[in-house]
Amino acid sequence: MAVNKLNDEERKDLLTPLLGSGWKVVEGRDAIYKEFFFKNFNQAFGVMSRVAMQAEKMDHHPEWFNVYNKLQVTLSTHDVNGLSKKDITLAKFIETASANLN
Amino acid sequence: MAVNKLNDEERKDLLTPLLGSGWKVVEGRDAIYKEFFFKNFNQAFGVMSRVAMQAEKMDHHPEWFNVYNKLQVTLSTHDVNGLSKKDITLAKFIETASANLN
Repeated sequence: MAVNKLNDEERKDLLTPLLGSGWKVVEGRDAIYKEFFFKNFNQAFGVMSRVAMQAEKMDHHPEWFNVYNKLQVTLSTHDVNGLSKKDITLAKFIETASANLN
Repeated sequence: MAVNKLNDEERKDLLTPLLGSGWKVVEGRDAIYKEFFFKNFNQAFGVMSRVAMQAEKMDHHPEWFNVYNKLQVTLSTHDVNGLSKKDITLAKFIETASANLN
């Protein structure tokens, strides 16, 4: 399936909700970013493990930095040099995986 | 067990071998850093998973950045504001975990 850069309508429909839940557009780059704080490393790496498997399945991988309970994620699509629907899908997956943790 | 900052003798004995295998002292900070390149994401995250479990066991966690096959690791010990034996132990573990992958 061909991957395309998000068009204006897709940005409005797909990107805007993510911006409402803490994702930010990276300055000077067509990418999105969010910083998560978990309870501890177990929880942070647990989320990372779930995301890693989803990323591998999609063949679409995050740029991420972790230290202890902090996780910083940047998403963009190399092939289109910007945001694609893959980034939206992965961002939504991360939101779900990081929600309602105990 | 109390954790102490590495003294000069420990730096010579414990740190020097790591510097010989690609670890570098971070500029302006008593920390060590190494960049790894793996075959793919599966391999990179596989190593990260092994390191994560070891880190949790030691209660000593890396600062790390990953994208696809690249992994950048920084080690330092927050409690002593610098390098301790825990960093040496974790660095050696990472060396072993990232060696001889197929």
